Amino acid sequence: MNSYEDLCSLAREISLIHSTASVLGWDQETYMPPKSLDHRARQVAYLSAKAHALATSADFRSLLEKAEPEATATEPTQAANLREWRYELERAARIPTALVAEESEVTSHAKHAWVESRKRSDFTLFAPHLTRVLEIARRKAALWGFKDEPYDALLLGYERGATTSAVASLFAELKPQLATIARKAVEQSAGIPKDLLHGDYPVEKQQQLNREIAESLGFDFEAGRIDTTAHPFCTTLGPGDVRLTTRYDSEDFTSSLFGVLHEAGHGLYEQGLPPADFGLPSGTAVSLGIHESQSRLWENHVGRSESFWQKWLPRAAELFPNLQKIAPSDFLKSIHRSEFSFIRVESDEATYDLHILLRFELERRLLNGSLEVAEVPKAWNEAFEGLFGLTPPDDAHGCLQDIHWSMGGLGYFATYTLGNLNAAQLFQEAVSRPEIASGVDRAEYQPLLKWLRQRIHAKGSEQHPADLMRSATGRPTESAPYLRHLRGRFGETLHA
Amino acid sequence: MNSYEDLCSLAREISLIHSTASVLGWDQETYMPPKSLDHRARQVAYLSAKAHALATSADFRSLLEKAEPEATATEPTQAANLREWRYELERAARIPTALVAEESEVTSHAKHAWVESRKRSDFTLFAPHLTRVLEIARRKAALWGFKDEPYDALLLGYERGATTSAVASLFAELKPQLATIARKAVEQSAGIPKDLLHGDYPVEKQQQLNREIAESLGFDFEAGRIDTTAHPFCTTLGPGDVRLTTRYDSEDFTSSLFGVLHEAGHGLYEQGLPPADFGLPSGTAVSLGIHESQSRLWENHVGRSESFWQKWLPRAAELFPNLQKIAPSDFLKSIHRSEFSFIRVESDEATYDLHILLRFELERRLLNGSLEVAEVPKAWNEAFEGLFGLTPPDDAHGCLQDIHWSMGGLGYFATYTLGNLNAAQLFQEAVSRPEIASGVDRAEYQPLLKWLRQRIHAKGSEQHPADLMRSATGRPTESAPYLRHLRGRFGETLHA
Repeated sequence: MNSYEDLCSLAREISLIHSTASVLGWDQETYMPPKSLDHRARQVAYLSAKAHALATSADFRSLLEKAEPEATATEPTQAANLREWRYELERAARIPTALVAEESEVTSHAKHAWVESRKRSDFTLFAPHLTRVLEIARRKAALWGFKDEPYDALLLGYERGATTSAVASLFAELKPQLATIARKAVEQSAGIPKDLLHGDYPVEKQQQLNREIAESLGFDFEAGRIDTTAHPFCTTLGPGDVRLTTRYDSEDFTSSLFGVLHEAGHGLYEQGLPPADFGLPSGTAVSLGIHESQSRLWENHVGRSESFWQKWLPRAAELFPNLQKIAPSDFLKSIHRSEFSFIRVESDEATYDLHILLRFELERRLLNGSLEVAEVPKAWNEAFEGLFGLTPPDDAHGCLQDIHWSMGGLGYFATYTLGNLNAAQLFQEAVSRPEIASGVDRAEYQPLLKWLRQRIHAKGSEQHPADLMRSATGRPTESAPYLRHLRGRFGETLHA
Repeated sequence: MNSYEDLCSLAREISLIHSTASVLGWDQETYMPPKSLDHRARQVAYLSAKAHALATSADFRSLLEKAEPEATATEPTQAANLREWRYELERAARIPTALVAEESEVTSHAKHAWVESRKRSDFTLFAPHLTRVLEIARRKAALWGFKDEPYDALLLGYERGATTSAVASLFAELKPQLATIARKAVEQSAGIPKDLLHGDYPVEKQQQLNREIAESLGFDFEAGRIDTTAHPFCTTLGPGDVRLTTRYDSEDFTSSLFGVLHEAGHGLYEQGLPPADFGLPSGTAVSLGIHESQSRLWENHVGRSESFWQKWLPRAAELFPNLQKIAPSDFLKSIHRSEFSFIRVESDEATYDLHILLRFELERRLLNGSLEVAEVPKAWNEAFEGLFGLTPPDDAHGCLQDIHWSMGGLGYFATYTLGNLNAAQLFQEAVSRPEIASGVDRAEYQPLLKWLRQRIHAKGSEQHPADLMRSATGRPTESAPYLRHLRGRFGETLHA
C-alpha cells in the first residue's frame, strides 16, 4: 500500500503546516504585541499558500489516483480517508486560484467595512461589500454544484452529507416550539434578579476554579492550557496541544466558567481524536455540528445541571465568599435566567436558537436571490419581531451584529443549532445507561467521557455526521431530545 | 537591479520561515504544554529544512551571481548585503548535507548524555559524545578552512572578521588584571551580608517594576513583551515583535530585574534594527560580541550604577516596603557584592570573565589537538585553581556545567567577554558626550539610546564588528575601557 502511505505522509506534511499556522493564530489572539500584526499576517499567508499548494498539487492527485483502486473493503479507515481526500480535492480543484485570491481580497475589505459599518450602525457602508461577498459565494456554489439550492453547496463545507432541505425541515419543526419555550422561560425569569450573583470574583480564583472543573471533566492540562482572550475559542496546535481561551468578568465568575466549559467541550473532542491519525481525516473532527454538540453538551447539559452544582457550588463558595449567602435553588435559577436579547452572543440557552433560525432563513433567501442585500435590515427586523416580539433599535443590534458574513462564512450559522440538537440527543442516549447516569448524578464524568470518546471522538471523520449520530444514538439528528431538554429546564419549574 | 531585488525577496522569504520557527521556539519555552514536545520538534525541523533548502538553493546562488557584478560602489548597503550573502552561502555550501545530518544526530545524543552526565557528575558518560562533537567541529573547520588554527573557522560563525590570535592577545592582556580585580572585589565583599536584600517581593510587583524600568530605557511594549522562563532570553519574532523573558525569585527582586535589564539590552538592539530591512543582513544584528555588548551595557553600566538607583530605589521601595530600611549605599554594596563561584551563570561582574578565559583556552587546545578529551576534567580543575585559587568539588561544578559543548557550540564562549569589552568601550565613548553623560546622571537614557541606535543598531550587519567598533568609538575592541570600568567599580571603593 505504498501510494496510500505516501498520501498519508503528504497529508501529515500539510497538517504540520496548518498546525504551525495555528500556533501563529493562537499567539496573535493571546500574547502578540500590536506592532507585529503585519508581519504575522505575512507569516500566516505564506504558510496557508504552501499548504494549499500541496493540498491541490499534481502529486497529491496522482497519489490519490493510485491509492484509490488499491483500497480494500477490509480497511474502513483507509477507505474513509480516501473518500474524504477525494472530496476535499475535488472541492478545492473546482475553485480557480483567481477566485480564491478575489475572495481573500473582497473579504479583507468587507471585514474592515463591517467594523466601521457596525460602529456607525450604518448598513449602507457594508451593503456593497456584502453584495460582493454574496456574489462570490454564489459563484463558488455554482462551481461546486448543488442539487436544490446554492445553500446546499456552502453547508457541505461545514457539515458533510447535510442538505438544506433536511435542515430546513428540522428548523421548521423547531421554530414554533422554540418560540413558545423561549417566551415561557423569559416570563418565568421576570422575578429573578439579574444581579443575584454579582460580587467580587478575583481573576486568579476564577482561574483556579475553572482549572479544577476542566480537569474534573477530563481535560488534560499536560496536553493543553487555558489563556485569556477577548472572545473565547479552542484551537488545536498539535496532537498533544489543545488550547482553550476565556474572558474574565471580575464581578461575575460564571462568564469565564461557562466559556471554559464550552471550550473544554471542544477541547475534550480534540484531545479524544486518535493522536496517531493527526493530520488524516480519521484523526480530524468530522463537522461543526458535531463539534458544537460537544461544547454544548458540557456547557449546558452538564455545566448548568443541578447535580453539577451540588458538587461545585460549595467549592465555588470556598473561593468566593459572597456565594455563601446564596441558596442553591436561587443559584440554579440565576444560571437558568432567560431574557430576550438583540445580540446572539449575549443570548441564553432558551433563546439562542431563535437567533440562528433567523439567520438561516435570511442567508438562504439571499443565496436564492429572493432577498436583495438592500432589503436585509428590513427583513431582519421583521423576522426578529416575529420571533421575539421586539424590534432592534438599530442595525448594530440587528443585521450588523455578526462578523460571519463579512468573512464569507455563509452556510455556517445552521451548525450552531445542529450542535444543540446533537448535544441533547447524545446526552439523552448516554444517560440512558445506568452507569453514566449515576456518574452524572454524582458529578463524576469519566463514564460519560468514555462513552463520548468511543462513540464520537475516536471516530474522527470516518463517518458522515448523520451516520455518526445514527451509530451513536440509533437515529440521525432530530429535534425531540432537544425540545424535551429545554421543556424540562424551562417548563413547569425553572430547573427541573 | 532586478536580480538584487529578487535576492532580497528570497532572503525575506527565508526570514519569514525563520521568524515563524522563532514563534514556535518562544512558545515552547513559555507556554507549550509538555505533551506537545514531539509534534513541536517536527514543526521546527520542517521549517528549518525548508529555510536551509532555500538558503542553499541553486536559485539563491544564481541570483547572487547575477547581482554581484551589477552592484555599484554608491550603494554600500547593497554591497554589504551581497558580501554577507556570499559569505553565508559559501560557508553553508562547504558543509555536505550528510555532515549536517550527522551533526544533528550526534548533538542530539550528546545533549541527552550531557544531562545525565552532569546529573551524576560523571564525565566518562559525556566523554565519548564530546569526542564525536569535537571531531565534527574539526571536520567543519577543515572544510571551511582557516589561516592559523581550527578555532578561527568556528569563531567566524559568531563573530565576523575576528581571529583567534587577536582574541587570544586581548584575553592574555586581560587575564592577570582581571584576576587581581576579582580577588580584590571578593576580599572587599567579605563584610557585605549575602542576604541584605532578602525579603518579600511579590511577583506581580516585580513585573510592574521591571516593566516600568524597561520602558524607561526605551523598550517598546507595543513591539515586545516580557514572559517567564526557566532561563532568561530574548528572541525576535518579527520586525515589530521582540520578546524578553526572565525568572522570578520571590525573595530577591534583583534576580528578575537584572535578567530583564540584560535581555532588554538585547531587545533594544533588535528593536533598533532597520525594520524595512528585516530579513536582510542590513537589518540583522551583526555578531554575538556586539549583541552581548548591548545587554551588558544596560545591565551593568546602566543598571548597576549609582545614578540609576538614585532614581529607581525609591520607586522600588514603594513597591517593596522592606527596602525602605536599607540605606542606598548598602543597597549599592549589595548589588556589587562579589564572590567566587564554581558556576559561570551564577558568577558576578567582577569574576565572570575568568570563567570565559578558562573555556576559551580549553576549547582552543581541544581543537588544536593539544588537549585530549579524557584530560578535560584535570585541565579544567587546574586552570580553575590557577584563576580562582579553588578546586571544583566535582565535574558537575566544573567541566560539565555548561550545555554549549553538547550542542556543538565550540567557539561561542569568547563572544561573552568580547561583549563585555565592547560594552565598556561603547559606554565610555557615549558618556564622553556631555548631553549623554548628563542624561545618564539623571537616569534618563534617551540620549544614550539615540547614540546607540545611530552608531550600532541602525547599522545592522553593514560593517564587521571590528569596523563597527572603530566607527563608533575610533578604536577596535580593546581592553582598557573595560578594565577602567571594573577598577572604578571594584577598586578603591566598591561603588565609585
